[in-house]
Amino acid sequence: MRKFLLAGLLLITAYQVEAQTTSPLTARLDKVSLTFAVGADGHPTYAVSFGSKTVIKPSRLGLSFADGRGFDGPLVLTGSETKSVDETWQPVWGEVKTIRNHYQQLTVHLRQPDANGRRLDVVFRVFADGVGFRYEFPRQAGLQYFTVQDEHTEFNLPANHKSFWIPGDYDSNEYAYTTSRLSEVNTTPIKAIELKAPANRIQTPLMLKSDDGLYINIHEAALVNYPAMMLNVDTQTFCLSSQLVPDGTGTGAKAYLQAPEHTPWRTIVVSDKAPDMLASKLILNLNEPSKLPDTNWIKPQKFVGVWWEMQVGKSSWNYSDSSNIRLAGTDWSKLKPNGRHGATTANVKRYIDFAAAHHIPGVLVEGWNVGWEDWVGNWKEDVFDFVTPYPDFDVQELQRYAASKGVNIIMHHETSGSATNYERRQDAAYRFMNEHGYISVKTGYVGRIIPRGEHHDGQWMVNHYVRTAQNTADHRIMVDMHEAVRPTGLHRTYPNWLACESARGNEFNAFAEGSAPEHETILPFTRYMGGPMDYTPGIFKLQGYAAADPKRQMHSTLAKQLALYVTLYSPLQMAADLPENYEQHLDAFQFIEDVPVDWDDTRILAAEPGDYITTVRKAKGRDEWYLGSITDEQARKQPVKLDFLTPGQRYEAIIYADGKGADWQTNPAAYRISRQVVTSRSSLSLQLAPGGGAAVSFKPVAK
Amino acid sequence: MRKFLLAGLLLITAYQVEAQTTSPLTARLDKVSLTFAVGADGHPTYAVSFGSKTVIKPSRLGLSFADGRGFDGPLVLTGSETKSVDETWQPVWGEVKTIRNHYQQLTVHLRQPDANGRRLDVVFRVFADGVGFRYEFPRQAGLQYFTVQDEHTEFNLPANHKSFWIPGDYDSNEYAYTTSRLSEVNTTPIKAIELKAPANRIQTPLMLKSDDGLYINIHEAALVNYPAMMLNVDTQTFCLSSQLVPDGTGTGAKAYLQAPEHTPWRTIVVSDKAPDMLASKLILNLNEPSKLPDTNWIKPQKFVGVWWEMQVGKSSWNYSDSSNIRLAGTDWSKLKPNGRHGATTANVKRYIDFAAAHHIPGVLVEGWNVGWEDWVGNWKEDVFDFVTPYPDFDVQELQRYAASKGVNIIMHHETSGSATNYERRQDAAYRFMNEHGYISVKTGYVGRIIPRGEHHDGQWMVNHYVRTAQNTADHRIMVDMHEAVRPTGLHRTYPNWLACESARGNEFNAFAEGSAPEHETILPFTRYMGGPMDYTPGIFKLQGYAAADPKRQMHSTLAKQLALYVTLYSPLQMAADLPENYEQHLDAFQFIEDVPVDWDDTRILAAEPGDYITTVRKAKGRDEWYLGSITDEQARKQPVKLDFLTPGQRYEAIIYADGKGADWQTNPAAYRISRQVVTSRSSLSLQLAPGGGAAVSFKPVAK
Repeated sequence: MRKFLLAGLLLITAYQVEAQTTSPLTARLDKVSLTFAVGADGHPTYAVSFGSKTVIKPSRLGLSFADGRGFDGPLVLTGSETKSVDETWQPVWGEVKTIRNHYQQLTVHLRQPDANGRRLDVVFRVFADGVGFRYEFPRQAGLQYFTVQDEHTEFNLPANHKSFWIPGDYDSNEYAYTTSRLSEVNTTPIKAIELKAPANRIQTPLMLKSDDGLYINIHEAALVNYPAMMLNVDTQTFCLSSQLVPDGTGTGAKAYLQAPEHTPWRTIVVSDKAPDMLASKLILNLNEPSKLPDTNWIKPQKFVGVWWEMQVGKSSWNYSDSSNIRLAGTDWSKLKPNGRHGATTANVKRYIDFAAAHHIPGVLVEGWNVGWEDWVGNWKEDVFDFVTPYPDFDVQELQRYAASKGVNIIMHHETSGSATNYERRQDAAYRFMNEHGYISVKTGYVGRIIPRGEHHDGQWMVNHYVRTAQNTADHRIMVDMHEAVRPTGLHRTYPNWLACESARGNEFNAFAEGSAPEHETILPFTRYMGGPMDYTPGIFKLQGYAAADPKRQMHSTLAKQLALYVTLYSPLQMAADLPENYEQHLDAFQFIEDVPVDWDDTRILAAEPGDYITTVRKAKGRDEWYLGSITDEQARKQPVKLDFLTPGQRYEAIIYADGKGADWQTNPAAYRISRQVVTSRSSLSLQLAPGGGAAVSFKPVAK
Repeated sequence: MRKFLLAGLLLITAYQVEAQTTSPLTARLDKVSLTFAVGADGHPTYAVSFGSKTVIKPSRLGLSFADGRGFDGPLVLTGSETKSVDETWQPVWGEVKTIRNHYQQLTVHLRQPDANGRRLDVVFRVFADGVGFRYEFPRQAGLQYFTVQDEHTEFNLPANHKSFWIPGDYDSNEYAYTTSRLSEVNTTPIKAIELKAPANRIQTPLMLKSDDGLYINIHEAALVNYPAMMLNVDTQTFCLSSQLVPDGTGTGAKAYLQAPEHTPWRTIVVSDKAPDMLASKLILNLNEPSKLPDTNWIKPQKFVGVWWEMQVGKSSWNYSDSSNIRLAGTDWSKLKPNGRHGATTANVKRYIDFAAAHHIPGVLVEGWNVGWEDWVGNWKEDVFDFVTPYPDFDVQELQRYAASKGVNIIMHHETSGSATNYERRQDAAYRFMNEHGYISVKTGYVGRIIPRGEHHDGQWMVNHYVRTAQNTADHRIMVDMHEAVRPTGLHRTYPNWLACESARGNEFNAFAEGSAPEHETILPFTRYMGGPMDYTPGIFKLQGYAAADPKRQMHSTLAKQLALYVTLYSPLQMAADLPENYEQHLDAFQFIEDVPVDWDDTRILAAEPGDYITTVRKAKGRDEWYLGSITDEQARKQPVKLDFLTPGQRYEAIIYADGKGADWQTNPAAYRISRQVVTSRSSLSLQLAPGGGAAVSFKPVAK
């Protein structure tokens, strides 16, 4: 990363230091403008507009502290500075090869009105596609250690926008999105996954659409050492106010800080074009560059795994059906095997064989280690030790076998929410991985957190995830976190942190009723704004797969499952279905085999949240393009001009489309594969079935 | 340990299994008898008597659970068993070579009255000097994971006993003892050290004396995976009820358990002779044998250290006077030294030289590692890393120097209460110790605990201390814990866990007003009932030592400081004063040089809590005896018959006594050393000054 920064940085910075102490103050870039003011009552506010349209009306800023001397009372503006930055940088992996970071910065200096008053800065960065701002606590004698009791940031919206939201559960993001007007936000009817939210509390990233044609996304960037921000919706005034996730003490304290420190960036991405939202790099730009000394060991990758078979009830994580197991002192070899254990040496070899035959680099194995007999629901601290395999899982033999086939096995560390236990065992667990040749790990945090009382999205756990990213990096391990706080662009800073789950993934179609066909058209506008997800697409057996409920089915056609590899960006993509199901459709599987997970370029060709997305991406270092197009429950015709292709070059396009009569509900497996030679002057017309999609690969052919 | 068990065990066990389902049930040994009954209302009770005297009137038993299905309602007695055990065992180190474990056991089986009701056992062990009992949760389908919300154990006392108590602070035991009738228990006027206790809440070990001449001590044994028990005193009825320390969630939950499990033992030691209390091995006997595979690396030891000089304000733990320091990212070599740092290479060498010259095996060094600049009071998680020395502390050179002198440096790990930080760094810290030749560590937990909300004495921290004992043992490290929960005999199970502080130590005479002369006459009847303490005796400069307050003085004569090495039992004894102060009194220091820290035999010759103690001990493996005699603020004449000496053997007795006119307040340093030849038919008459004492060594002389 560092070498890219040195080689590729184009930095144009102008400092305009002013001793400006009157408000309002403004900053602007292209159509986006930001206004900051201190009112007659001493309360600071900010406002944002896009061209002539109001994005955020004057909205409150401030924080209260546990010691009562916070920044929630009147403040004095003591100065301000502006700065202009225009630079480019190259991510270690990503959707594009080069990212431009262009913004106007306004820093305002505030002070409590008493003579030796504590000082607070607010830093605004105005981009062409939105605004980021954060609170900064400078080094000062009167403010060293302090506790944030509440943050009073508001997002005062001018109208009753259409919104795409999930409830403000402090411990889970795995909800289906509700689409409603702000006035209709009400979480009450929604079944809680972990912790019931008040009726008006929702999560970010929050996607909004105004009646006057603006797309607005509210989230945060660089969430470190601070709790996640939820939003309380005033359904009368459409003012959203920050609700930080509390700590575990029951006192309502939110963050324990030491100056100098700053909050995460509060982000408002805005455009009058929906595709611009998906192309925005605002959140990434607000994150710090990579902290890792070298990154050449980090490899985006596809994987298969012993996982979906547990989701559908074909096999089990647990080796025995005993219950009331104790990690220490149990002789696992004495337990009676249940005959359904998924992570057996023989079964894992079957996945390794399939991966090797189809050029899939990774094989995830869940349920390999002891402790799954009663792993969840008991708020138990010592569930797993992360180093002891079940008797039927041969670590050495599988590593030997995988290596001989050129495949790597992906480690799995389910913590059962017991972060204290994981922290005290991480050293040993990562040494075990290094010793046995594992290069990446999937972590999980199912259930209530230990330290008891803490939440998945509170400051302590936020720091745990960041520490885990750093610790894995120290061991040259890539990490994929499930049930962690939703991402905020930290994969720029820790590029070994490939993905998170932190949303409702594809497995809800296996163990629960699933997600509506629109789900994947909303996710990129919400959850993916913060970073890549391990969504686990690629289910080919779309009906009759769930042992618990034979009527259960995917809310998708087979072709749409392929398209998701392009429309849902991640450096880590699972081919989630069982080898035997893929064997039935190896012609379609060819797309999964071909599609890259790292890109030089990305174009969002068409998008509307809740309706459709069409995205095309250029493979890293190769003149190959891959297109994905998906729709919600509506059939849709999607014209595509191929002017992104290199002019003069001929490509073979392989089109994986919904078949005749395809329909997610009645005929999901109907697909049709066709080939044609195209150039940059060609166009395609993709016919998407209800709940359907299309995937296209473009590979150059000899001239 | 194991070899002792195999070689030395004398086990006489008689089983009498009865299907007894009627109450009352009884068990008796010598004068102590226990009665268990289930009342007409279904509530179980127990009672204890000593001869004809009532120790505990019928008292409630029971627990309530968070799920509401605990054992606080009526119960059915479904059976009982009795058992008799008489065995001996040998501790790795201790006050005596061999310990007899002789008890009558009564187990009662209880059930909730509904047909599939949960089952609970209560196990009573009746010894000649008291009773222990605990709740046991057998393996059962209906009770696997459960949360104890409250324990309802009562100790219903028959009269308004004299009591020696400290307030029920969940986070500190460092209080002076109040002596009062139970009716007068009131913590209100007492300044809280960490957390203010309700007026009637006090701690165990609680020492009681009845008007009819009984000495009673209430405490617990083998505190593992459960919070410490405090006692709420009913000042009208003299009923004491169990108050468990709550967890950190603010919900009042106390313990998260998994059946099969049991609580710690609740202990009642009783006798009509005060010395019997100090000789009791009841609590040790209720603990499990050593869990360590070998123990030959465990060595009781004396030590000096860079410590008292910080207590008295001569030097500082911190290297610089900067504040608002951050562990990560600080370049410690750039900080401006304050010139008062105690743990410099040169100063530590001075202590090593003194230790080597006087056969003291250990040198403790506090303040050696970075982070002390603002280590306390900020509820900060990452204060110390336990591996980075200050720039003026040369780890390699000091280890080389110490080894060349035959001295070992004792590691210091102050955690600042941040147990999460310590746990995630323990592996690295203990590896650092192994690499650099450290064999023992003193830990500390000053300040509020992290995980935030947890208490020093709650279940989570109790488990932390036990884990730390195990982790240090795994690295062949001995451990001495300060600010940990008060001991409950676990040094039998983890013999590398040499001592705890967990009470008001000698340093209160340095940084605060100190403790009254009676303090050390109460401690053995209270705090030491659970196990050894690192009290840090041996202060020779008794006045004018405290930089902050020149009038401050020790509440002791010099001779009494010597006597404490015998009256306060510990396998780890500090010679706490500065080398330069010892140099002034090397004739007196000879006793500290001579006195062992491991013993073959111990006799309590005279004792009365709050007044006086005279103890004599025989050195491990040698025919040498050491006597300590102390008094409170009253002068006292203590006759001593030397019939403990080997008959026919002549000994040189060196008597370190208070000098003429000695008085802790006006003339503390007056001492007189005399020598005489004695035999088992001799006797001594020791004259103890107010706040004074005497120490005597007896070494064989040629016949």
